[in-house]
Amino acid sequence: MADEFDVVVVGAGPAGENVAGRAVRGGLSVAVVEEELAGGECSYWACIPSKALLRPVDLVAEVGRVPGLETGPIDTAAVLARRDEAVSHLDDEGQVGWIEGLPAEFVRGRGKLDGPKVVGVTARDGSVRTLRARHAVVLATGSRPVFPEVPGLAEARPWTSREATAVREVPRRLVVLGGGVVACEMAQALHGLGAREVTLLVRGGSLLGRVEPFAGELVAESMRASGIDVRTRAEVTRVERPTPGGPVTVHLADGESVEADELLVATGRAPATGDVGLASAGLPEHGPVKVDDSMRATGVDGGWLYAVGDVNGRALLTHMGKYQARVCGDVIVARAKGEPDDLPALRAVADGYGPPQVVFTDPQVCAVGRTEEAARAEGFDVRVVEYDLGSVSGAYLLGDDYRGRAKAVVDERRRVLLGVTFAGPGVAELLQAATVAVVAEVPLDRLWHAVPAFPTVSEVWLRLLEEYGL
Amino acid sequence: MADEFDVVVVGAGPAGENVAGRAVRGGLSVAVVEEELAGGECSYWACIPSKALLRPVDLVAEVGRVPGLETGPIDTAAVLARRDEAVSHLDDEGQVGWIEGLPAEFVRGRGKLDGPKVVGVTARDGSVRTLRARHAVVLATGSRPVFPEVPGLAEARPWTSREATAVREVPRRLVVLGGGVVACEMAQALHGLGAREVTLLVRGGSLLGRVEPFAGELVAESMRASGIDVRTRAEVTRVERPTPGGPVTVHLADGESVEADELLVATGRAPATGDVGLASAGLPEHGPVKVDDSMRATGVDGGWLYAVGDVNGRALLTHMGKYQARVCGDVIVARAKGEPDDLPALRAVADGYGPPQVVFTDPQVCAVGRTEEAARAEGFDVRVVEYDLGSVSGAYLLGDDYRGRAKAVVDERRRVLLGVTFAGPGVAELLQAATVAVVAEVPLDRLWHAVPAFPTVSEVWLRLLEEYGL
Repeated sequence: MADEFDVVVVGAGPAGENVAGRAVRGGLSVAVVEEELAGGECSYWACIPSKALLRPVDLVAEVGRVPGLETGPIDTAAVLARRDEAVSHLDDEGQVGWIEGLPAEFVRGRGKLDGPKVVGVTARDGSVRTLRARHAVVLATGSRPVFPEVPGLAEARPWTSREATAVREVPRRLVVLGGGVVACEMAQALHGLGAREVTLLVRGGSLLGRVEPFAGELVAESMRASGIDVRTRAEVTRVERPTPGGPVTVHLADGESVEADELLVATGRAPATGDVGLASAGLPEHGPVKVDDSMRATGVDGGWLYAVGDVNGRALLTHMGKYQARVCGDVIVARAKGEPDDLPALRAVADGYGPPQVVFTDPQVCAVGRTEEAARAEGFDVRVVEYDLGSVSGAYLLGDDYRGRAKAVVDERRRVLLGVTFAGPGVAELLQAATVAVVAEVPLDRLWHAVPAFPTVSEVWLRLLEEYGL
Repeated sequence: MADEFDVVVVGAGPAGENVAGRAVRGGLSVAVVEEELAGGECSYWACIPSKALLRPVDLVAEVGRVPGLETGPIDTAAVLARRDEAVSHLDDEGQVGWIEGLPAEFVRGRGKLDGPKVVGVTARDGSVRTLRARHAVVLATGSRPVFPEVPGLAEARPWTSREATAVREVPRRLVVLGGGVVACEMAQALHGLGAREVTLLVRGGSLLGRVEPFAGELVAESMRASGIDVRTRAEVTRVERPTPGGPVTVHLADGESVEADELLVATGRAPATGDVGLASAGLPEHGPVKVDDSMRATGVDGGWLYAVGDVNGRALLTHMGKYQARVCGDVIVARAKGEPDDLPALRAVADGYGPPQVVFTDPQVCAVGRTEEAARAEGFDVRVVEYDLGSVSGAYLLGDDYRGRAKAVVDERRRVLLGVTFAGPGVAELLQAATVAVVAEVPLDRLWHAVPAFPTVSEVWLRLLEEYGL
């Protein structure tokens, strides 16, 4: 009996924790299963440590744009110490305490579906505990890095985002495979923290392929200006690392090669579904767990399985996983109590608008909604307005040679924003206004009265609307 | 005939310039009259130079919160040089060129109403040119600092915001009268740029009296921690400066006195109406020019007089003046052409929500809409939610000991936000999301789907809504 709960959540990352929190708030009993650390990838090996590493690097760049102020060299040891503090020295006691305090039962071990509403948990000592769910099982197992098929790559034991964010000694020479968020952020972080030679090998033609192209171009320019070697259309053919921990050589299709002291592979992530027992729920073993807007897995008899966060493949972003988790926890409560389960708060409708995202590079990049290309592909009657952020007084006041850009994608039929992208130093906090405007579908004619304060960078809102013709 | 225009604008600050820009865009001929510099107070002696002075001081504070990074001493000469650049070395050639390029006629001189639709412009050489307006005269003369009635104060020739922002030599000892935006910003700026002894004498019980009380308290705490002597309930009885330019002594009602090398008076501003000839339009000579939401002065026969910006007393803020100016320019065009003059874009409705404002102190303060006190006084069914900004991951990542707070005032009947206030390092750009939410009256249940990106400071939006109970 002690092994029966209303809800069993597999995975105690931010998404799993939020499902648990909402379900307990609704009066349900909850068990949370976690094989690694409660708190998840984000807390220990992703968002949190990467931002702790990037913050001083970002500030050095900020100071560098302001005459009359200089920074001394970065004390890397102090930065790593703060990073360690930010990740709680990889101790999840606080997070476990939070879960237990909900209260919910925390079960350490590897959770695997074992038939309808049943989760088997294998502890490190091999013992297995069986948890039964009265109402729902929620998968929140996150994602895992994906390596490209390159001879010698796996054998070279490259870094993933985990080793990069957990860095203890900054390599003198670093080569990075990838051009996405992790690749760009960690290349700049480690370069700023002392890596002398950093090479970014990007398979495609640009960085940050999922946002508007100008953003990736600005980041590439900034990287190159700081001395990072950014190579696009780089096709890696072979990797050699004769001595474990020794120098690594990356061979390219154009005949060139790059030697470095460390290799970071940041070429994407895939839902962590391979070993969670999806077959026992009648689902394919691999790939994302497909869900509806209430986060319920589709194609499962009885509708007892849910999936939130990276594992459902909708948006591999911490905040979207948490959002889905709030919806999921609440909808499970509603269904368990026989209450209406179709209220607006019980559907993760924001996913459909295009999730907000911030890239903490220099320049920062943030975007929400659809890119111009996506909006056109979906058949919207699109009009685009752009504005040079450096022409905004508030940006000029942040420092010399401010370079940045804003772009808004308008649905001409409804005169609402479909997407907004900002790239420039310090733009991260500009995103929320765009998210409100996009998700609440605020008409441009109403946004016109939302006067941005002078002299903030946000005054770009006025400029975009003026460019539009208001 | 060359002296007749469709519109005559008196004052070429940001508000006057925007009226001209919109009116010309609408096909009207415009003359812009300015006695001082085109660009106005904001460009040369207020927002722009103060922010140029504050930026390095702010960055020193930011760096101070991040372990592993240090700044050297501020090179004040370099900061003043950038300030000079930011104010175009007090040369308005660029601004005059912008006005003439609209095209509009720029007329240098003191403009004064001289009967219906007539403005007399007195040039520096005493010559007078008479401008006649076919459709409208717009007053955009701004505001002037107001001194309290204190014996010896005027004779001491104290600094106003003009002299403070135009500082060439930072005084070793500075005493500031006032506790509003200018007083707080300039006290911190000059302290950061080298003033060793800074004393703030505040008549009331707190700083920044127009925003939520917690914001002023956080700024006062920060000032005191940095060594600024903040004295509230300070009643100045007498000022002595026996030698012009020499030390100044400020005597207080409690018997104490403060000696300093310079005195800054920042006790408020009043509409600049004393000498613009309001009587010739049948209006009182002094006080703000009362206007309706189309910026038309009330009580003027024929409705030919408009007033935008500080001079109408609605909101003494550059961005609100510019906003009013856009409305005003457009409505004058509509009326001149006999087109509908009551479209939503032709009313400055944002004024009624409570204007957005940013204070660039450390911590920064920003607010939009109504304070709790104001909302209650107006009879709204108010509920308040608050959240400690330092508990937001994105704030923690900005630096150690992040102190800040957010407060939202909710209209329970409609479940929309009436006001939002943030205080904390780096919050300035958080304001626009609040402004959109308040002015577009986005329901809380919809804001719930506007997911803030992790890990930004904006995640406080999620926390506020969770506190509310969503």
